[in-house]
Amino acid sequence: MAQKPSIPKGTRDFGPAEMAGRNYIFDTIKSVFKTYGYMPIETPAMENLGTLLGKYGEEGDKLLFRILNSGDAFSGVDFGSFTLEDGKCNSKALSLKVCEKGLRYDLTVPFARFVVQHQNDLSFPFKRYQIQPVWRADRPQKGRYREFYQCDADVIGSKSLLNELELVQIVDRVFSLFDISVLIKVNNRKVLTGLAEISGFPDKVVDITVAIDKIDKIGIEAVKAEMKEKGLTDAAIAVIEPVLTLRGSHAEKIASMRALMEGRSASGIVSETGIKGLEELDELFGLIDAAGISQEVEIDLSLARGLNYYTGAIFEVKAKDFEIGSICGGGRYDNLTGIFGLPDMSGVGISFGADRIYDVLKGLGKFPEEVTSSTRVLFANMGVEEMKYILPVARSLREAGIPCEIYADAAKLKKQFDYADRKSIPFISITGADEMSRGTVNLKNLAAGEQVSLSKNDLSAIVDFLSK
Amino acid sequence: MAQKPSIPKGTRDFGPAEMAGRNYIFDTIKSVFKTYGYMPIETPAMENLGTLLGKYGEEGDKLLFRILNSGDAFSGVDFGSFTLEDGKCNSKALSLKVCEKGLRYDLTVPFARFVVQHQNDLSFPFKRYQIQPVWRADRPQKGRYREFYQCDADVIGSKSLLNELELVQIVDRVFSLFDISVLIKVNNRKVLTGLAEISGFPDKVVDITVAIDKIDKIGIEAVKAEMKEKGLTDAAIAVIEPVLTLRGSHAEKIASMRALMEGRSASGIVSETGIKGLEELDELFGLIDAAGISQEVEIDLSLARGLNYYTGAIFEVKAKDFEIGSICGGGRYDNLTGIFGLPDMSGVGISFGADRIYDVLKGLGKFPEEVTSSTRVLFANMGVEEMKYILPVARSLREAGIPCEIYADAAKLKKQFDYADRKSIPFISITGADEMSRGTVNLKNLAAGEQVSLSKNDLSAIVDFLSK
Repeated sequence: MAQKPSIPKGTRDFGPAEMAGRNYIFDTIKSVFKTYGYMPIETPAMENLGTLLGKYGEEGDKLLFRILNSGDAFSGVDFGSFTLEDGKCNSKALSLKVCEKGLRYDLTVPFARFVVQHQNDLSFPFKRYQIQPVWRADRPQKGRYREFYQCDADVIGSKSLLNELELVQIVDRVFSLFDISVLIKVNNRKVLTGLAEISGFPDKVVDITVAIDKIDKIGIEAVKAEMKEKGLTDAAIAVIEPVLTLRGSHAEKIASMRALMEGRSASGIVSETGIKGLEELDELFGLIDAAGISQEVEIDLSLARGLNYYTGAIFEVKAKDFEIGSICGGGRYDNLTGIFGLPDMSGVGISFGADRIYDVLKGLGKFPEEVTSSTRVLFANMGVEEMKYILPVARSLREAGIPCEIYADAAKLKKQFDYADRKSIPFISITGADEMSRGTVNLKNLAAGEQVSLSKNDLSAIVDFLSK
Repeated sequence: MAQKPSIPKGTRDFGPAEMAGRNYIFDTIKSVFKTYGYMPIETPAMENLGTLLGKYGEEGDKLLFRILNSGDAFSGVDFGSFTLEDGKCNSKALSLKVCEKGLRYDLTVPFARFVVQHQNDLSFPFKRYQIQPVWRADRPQKGRYREFYQCDADVIGSKSLLNELELVQIVDRVFSLFDISVLIKVNNRKVLTGLAEISGFPDKVVDITVAIDKIDKIGIEAVKAEMKEKGLTDAAIAVIEPVLTLRGSHAEKIASMRALMEGRSASGIVSETGIKGLEELDELFGLIDAAGISQEVEIDLSLARGLNYYTGAIFEVKAKDFEIGSICGGGRYDNLTGIFGLPDMSGVGISFGADRIYDVLKGLGKFPEEVTSSTRVLFANMGVEEMKYILPVARSLREAGIPCEIYADAAKLKKQFDYADRKSIPFISITGADEMSRGTVNLKNLAAGEQVSLSKNDLSAIVDFLSK
């Protein structure tokens, strides 16, 4: 019995049409990375479990795909030694015994490992980009996959805010090339820390930020209620509240916040960290003004992504004309490589969400027409001699970079036309005995109906006609 | 304690220099695939084990990397039920219980699965290329990796020999673009079958071919000895021997072989299959002559790769000026998709060995210079105001497609020059207060020593200087 073919839940095949769109996305992003001096690297799909475990929290450890050492991993294993007191198997210990490797969960940890391992071969600041799949044993659901590409650019070994600027410029340029209007939101982790400090609850920075982060969804009253629930006093909430309704230009927002951080809030507490964060924001916007940005950039003090490891700038990008989550994000982290033995390496990076960008481009009809086109002309197969007559013509066209196909079999013309139609091939050539005797090829533009007969040796005329 | 970073045995990191070379290889091959109407697809890294098991022989099954269903895969497993009579664990059965997925072992089986699964969405003949990593739990050794890229093109759903021709043309064009001289060897499985038939040992085709395959390494006498060892009679070997020393043009080789297959060998046996194989070779070389090929193509009747599944043409490509195994190979297979429920789909494909091609290009110094170049100009960082002055210039250059960098920190110039040097950046700009007051940028070609001062607004002059 033949097997009914299927793929694992949460994974996908990409056919030619999807690949064309995806390659357009990756090629565009790569071309921009390159103009900023970012260089590609690749790391193995499999990392040692020791590299991965403990880097993504307890939840992350559970979502790692582990690889059996071999099909024979269980021979010689004494299962009794993995039996717990309640008679159950210590799954965690046993899986560590039979699995030494796991699949890449993101590109950031492998990048940190790469930088430490190859530090003597790299020039710092080291700017790299990396576009590879990652795997997570998440419950599959709409829009969430167990295998998906990440598309990251990071620079490590420099604290200069020029790096933050360049990432904003890269985002600006990429989405301008895509013709997608975006809002680039910028925040700074130090400002969030400062906010917690001036509220009098410096240890509640996560609770405060998680609550603030929901303001667009649940509204200001619910945010206040959540903070109260988390143990903040009314007085503390009163310090935070003005920040939630902050409006105005970048300069105005920064000035208002600076007043609060300098002790002019209801609590009177001064936050040096908060002031530092605002100075960074101020400097970054100075650079943004000098460089010139096409897309909209705004300070959003409720932006809190990646709170656990970002230490400075935080970025997030949303499409303006399409309802979807963030399509790009990133930030600065101060000690990514410390865990692998290289301290004091500050880095900043961004990650483009290729799947969502695909949905936006498709949803807004913004994929350029040439992305999906492939073969330019189909030479109908009229028989062996005709095919031999066409072969050198096809060869010349291909060497000139024009994709063309000769239909493989001398099938009925209807079948050959159908093939051209399904592959959206815009030109067809039916070259038979007449053309052979005259030394010509016959070319037809299927959409316009225009038809010409050109000398088979006049490559430039053929190229011209096919390029219209 | 910090972990000492490492990667699993048999896997590799690719840094920027290697990636540049690899991308050059893949981009070149892709560009040629595209001119022949081949379209890209991608399949998941993980396939259901049922898709993979039994497709690569018993040895292959052992080399599959299996993925644990989850970190908790062992909870609830009754290990007793996997205990054999001798008290040992039935490793195979237990691993099937806790692993449902495996890593892709090659691109051919996933392609077959893809074609069957998506048959209603595809236009046949379906021409696809696929460039993705595969994983094999082989013992790692020099030049053999546990993760490596395959780079395959296949066409499925057509028996026309035009497809074989096009694959030969693709090989020809790819290696011509690489400026590597190659020998393209062609054989036909049916001729090997015919040879076994006329020797009187039709069931010994594998033994005969495996022996013949070694002729370059061990010589004719050892090949004859091996055939004898495998049970062939002296009479049978006498029938085969002339084939081992066959010389001459394609036409002469085919004619000599045809005589043997038509019954004019010592055995007098006629092989219809052998004759069919020779007719296919003859037709293919007729097409090759019509199309025109730059590289050398020869019939090699000792070529026997992929004997287990090839049914028609067999290809292998060797570099002429560099000692290494085959750098490309392929052939026709008649029933690849049958196992997944779609019978009678003939296909033919080739696979480029990217790792070996990399070694050949590197060994022969054939990587084009521009492959390794990245950033064109480094703007030294002379301070915040100077940086702000340069930012719009850098932006314009980038939008014109010229990669440039501004050094992130206002570090000592020596450090900035070192960075340019290690990244092989050919131009540097030291633009300070003087240039700012004059509205110019200062540019220096580091190799030639030539230095100019150009208006910061004269983008075309700047581009011209940087393009020299």
